[in-house]
Amino acid sequence: MGYTRDELRFNGWGLSRQTFDMRGRDDEVWGFVREALGLDELPTTPAAPLDALRLPPVALGEDVLDGLRAITDADRVRTDRYERAFHAVGKSYYDLVRIRAGALEHAPDAVVYPTSHEETERLLAFCAERRVAVVPFGGGSSVVGGVEARAEGGQAGVVTLDTTRMTRLIAIDETSLTATFEAGVYGPDLEAALGARGYTVGHFPQSFEFSTLGGWIAARGAGQQSNRYGSAAKLLVGARVATPRGEWRTTPFPGSAAGPDLNHLVAGSEGTLGVITEATVRIRRLAEARDFVSFLFRSWSEGAEAVRAITQAELPVATLRLSDVDETRFYGGFKNVLKPSKVQELALSALGGAGFDAPCVLMVGFEGAPGTVRRAWRKVLTTATRGGGLYVGRSPGHAWYEQRFAMPYLRDPLMDRGVGIDTLETSTLWANVPRLYEAVTGAIRGALTAWGTPGIVLAHISHTYPAGTSLYFTFLFPRDLDDEVGQWRAAKEAASRAISEHGGTISHHHGVGLDHAPWLAAEKGPLGIDLLEAAKRSVDPEGVMNPGKLIGG
Amino acid sequence: MGYTRDELRFNGWGLSRQTFDMRGRDDEVWGFVREALGLDELPTTPAAPLDALRLPPVALGEDVLDGLRAITDADRVRTDRYERAFHAVGKSYYDLVRIRAGALEHAPDAVVYPTSHEETERLLAFCAERRVAVVPFGGGSSVVGGVEARAEGGQAGVVTLDTTRMTRLIAIDETSLTATFEAGVYGPDLEAALGARGYTVGHFPQSFEFSTLGGWIAARGAGQQSNRYGSAAKLLVGARVATPRGEWRTTPFPGSAAGPDLNHLVAGSEGTLGVITEATVRIRRLAEARDFVSFLFRSWSEGAEAVRAITQAELPVATLRLSDVDETRFYGGFKNVLKPSKVQELALSALGGAGFDAPCVLMVGFEGAPGTVRRAWRKVLTTATRGGGLYVGRSPGHAWYEQRFAMPYLRDPLMDRGVGIDTLETSTLWANVPRLYEAVTGAIRGALTAWGTPGIVLAHISHTYPAGTSLYFTFLFPRDLDDEVGQWRAAKEAASRAISEHGGTISHHHGVGLDHAPWLAAEKGPLGIDLLEAAKRSVDPEGVMNPGKLIGG
Repeated sequence: MGYTRDELRFNGWGLSRQTFDMRGRDDEVWGFVREALGLDELPTTPAAPLDALRLPPVALGEDVLDGLRAITDADRVRTDRYERAFHAVGKSYYDLVRIRAGALEHAPDAVVYPTSHEETERLLAFCAERRVAVVPFGGGSSVVGGVEARAEGGQAGVVTLDTTRMTRLIAIDETSLTATFEAGVYGPDLEAALGARGYTVGHFPQSFEFSTLGGWIAARGAGQQSNRYGSAAKLLVGARVATPRGEWRTTPFPGSAAGPDLNHLVAGSEGTLGVITEATVRIRRLAEARDFVSFLFRSWSEGAEAVRAITQAELPVATLRLSDVDETRFYGGFKNVLKPSKVQELALSALGGAGFDAPCVLMVGFEGAPGTVRRAWRKVLTTATRGGGLYVGRSPGHAWYEQRFAMPYLRDPLMDRGVGIDTLETSTLWANVPRLYEAVTGAIRGALTAWGTPGIVLAHISHTYPAGTSLYFTFLFPRDLDDEVGQWRAAKEAASRAISEHGGTISHHHGVGLDHAPWLAAEKGPLGIDLLEAAKRSVDPEGVMNPGKLIGG
Repeated sequence: MGYTRDELRFNGWGLSRQTFDMRGRDDEVWGFVREALGLDELPTTPAAPLDALRLPPVALGEDVLDGLRAITDADRVRTDRYERAFHAVGKSYYDLVRIRAGALEHAPDAVVYPTSHEETERLLAFCAERRVAVVPFGGGSSVVGGVEARAEGGQAGVVTLDTTRMTRLIAIDETSLTATFEAGVYGPDLEAALGARGYTVGHFPQSFEFSTLGGWIAARGAGQQSNRYGSAAKLLVGARVATPRGEWRTTPFPGSAAGPDLNHLVAGSEGTLGVITEATVRIRRLAEARDFVSFLFRSWSEGAEAVRAITQAELPVATLRLSDVDETRFYGGFKNVLKPSKVQELALSALGGAGFDAPCVLMVGFEGAPGTVRRAWRKVLTTATRGGGLYVGRSPGHAWYEQRFAMPYLRDPLMDRGVGIDTLETSTLWANVPRLYEAVTGAIRGALTAWGTPGIVLAHISHTYPAGTSLYFTFLFPRDLDDEVGQWRAAKEAASRAISEHGGTISHHHGVGLDHAPWLAAEKGPLGIDLLEAAKRSVDPEGVMNPGKLIGG
């Protein structure tokens, strides 16, 4: 169960032995990417190997390391090159740019693997006493700098606390439909343990294979079927958290008016208050039926209205995903290269004359009892058709579903060929969707153009709610090899500013980390930030927990 | 709109001109109550009139009162006997015992009526500067001591800040299905403003007519149709809060991973952080169809299993309410006196031989589109019948629905005749429902018996969730006129201890206030309490906001 560390890429996505499957049509894929980006050829830009990676020297003295070993054991306090590199950063484009370049300014001085809540508590108390920063690390899939191994001024060094040896299924309560796990369990192991008993948590983020229960909660993640299962914050019933001041439990109740709901302080705390060591989450019986259907819309706004109508009618869908014109064209082209969809091709060519020459595709996923799925599908068909949608079959949705965890593997070969790709996301009320969408796509395009390396910006709606929706943006661009960080930062800052100034949240499900911290103040307001800082001081008076993340902006 | 203050009882429920409607059958009602409590006759125990009520002298000097008048105006700073008495306590049994006895140890020195957020902010800053306690007061319907006008040692006095002149509908967003109101609006005015546009918030607690939007959120209330509409905490999309340190806003997003969700700190804050002056809440289109059906079960456990099955199958019901044997018998008897239900009588008498001699009644309410209501009803019928339930028609549910806001009016005439009645509630995971139910009913019965004044304890399940449910207890007893407070406290403490020690939350929807504060520490744990105290200090460094409530235990 889990992964041995050397199975995993230290500087890219997932398993070292696995690559993005181009199904033998590599030339076509690369031809399509060149065409999409308007490039004649793609450079070769390989990543620095581990041997060549420059890491800062270990700053912690042997006395501290011995202290850590005394709490755990010698084998679970690691200072080797691989462990330090693997735990130095997360999996954002910015992270990969730096680690692939062969030099990291920051890395953990040691990586510690506790095996119990009690050990975790002792580690935190020890680090607080010695003024050593602690970075909690589950799967390490943060794309916002949430696990970057950094100490603050005055701290003796930084220890990354890897939770992935705390993976036990503690209890399934089949009456209350809850399960309690140690929080370092990876997604597949969690689902396997539950699936054997006929249950699921239903949380399937794109990072599912390489992220942990604790990470999902700490970052308030959302899975691809969040319309049915809810985001991680909603799945959480009760948590056990190790803090520098000891144990903090939120008691599991279905609902309570006993003051503020502290589960919503655990969810989103991003390791700044402590380490989530156990979590009780809602489970459901495995869905008996599943379906995926697709529609084309003549325009993004028409599609968005249909998505809103489906959501506000509370039709029981698991996934709603509406791509804008560019994303529809890009993935359509991209996927056709990989796996031509006759239905889609046919539909697209036949429909040009009916106003569908630049369509937006909507994928709708259903899960549940067969009757519920059938009825929901009929109602969605009616609602989508009434809203101008054209049913184009099941294959686009099924193709997406099959590859739903594969896309992150594509980034590494793209980066090997001089192509940058990053994603960011937000949410807003429905009434504000058009304005925010225009602002963010425009800001990214504008920033890349101003940098002199125009790219393409793709967007989709997913994770919808009665009051609004998340908006997800992907942008691809030719890497400016002279100043990759500057180029990325220009686009990221432009997007963040657009989000902040146009009524969006700085993150719907990626979290805050280091990258979004400067934007949090505007969103929470000065008193909101004060409240969060006060909460942090109360459980982490020495300020050792994940310094700089969340409220460090 | 709203109520002029002298329309309202200062020492009882609701409008002075309205009483509980016994439909001309007063003798039968009283006969039934005597029989239920095993009493030969009921004493006459009238409440002290306003003129006879002893209030503490006004502690605040004219300089402070002038300061308050300068911020508002002379007419909105009240020190008269009625205003001070009306705002001295809430509407719990304990409150009424004291105010009816004719002497209050605590009362506000002044009652202030701000008309805007800005004025509220200035009032709080002024009170913080002068070390004057501020008690936010909406409808004042708290049954847990949440609005009791008390200052802490060292404070100059106590001002009650009545929000009910802040009632404007600020905006309806028909695209995002949200509405923004000033938070002092009473339930009926809020629903009237929305109803005129075809919408509802759907929050109908028993206190609906005499409680406010801000109060619902501050106390994390839940309405009788919460299975459909969600509790107040879930309805909240964004809040504007006036604190002693200025404005605190939570930005309205449908979902966000930008750190902890501070709406869940506003909800449940009970005036200890500030005054909720505006709130954006989810709205829904008015339900086109509504239905109410009832079933009988042979036992509480069989009924509870059926309720769990209906809930976990996620059938779209608005209300689920399962009374235990004693509550079924009591309300059955009580309601038959008021309004005989032939169906129920017939069913009950005919079914004795089929094991239904001591049944539990389940009421199921549906709201929504006609087709949805019909389909849900069919599925509930199947599920309930399969679980041993017997369909007994619509009348018990409709009778309950008609009287859903009337029951609090019954307490005053009961108290006039020497009868005490109190309610309390909790929630727990389904697996723990039998244990908690036995513990709490046993604890109340035991405490009353030990006091020498046995009474009856009624319970029901309502507000259900996939993971668990709330449990609601009502107990009636002959008042011990020699020591009413001691008698009540014995029962209340026994119940609270049973809840705390048997896996329940100290409140599902009444809140914490003064009465539950001593039990919060066990529930939140020492670090949880530290977090809440730290949050409070950050926005209320002088500790003037609603001292002693929530975390004062």
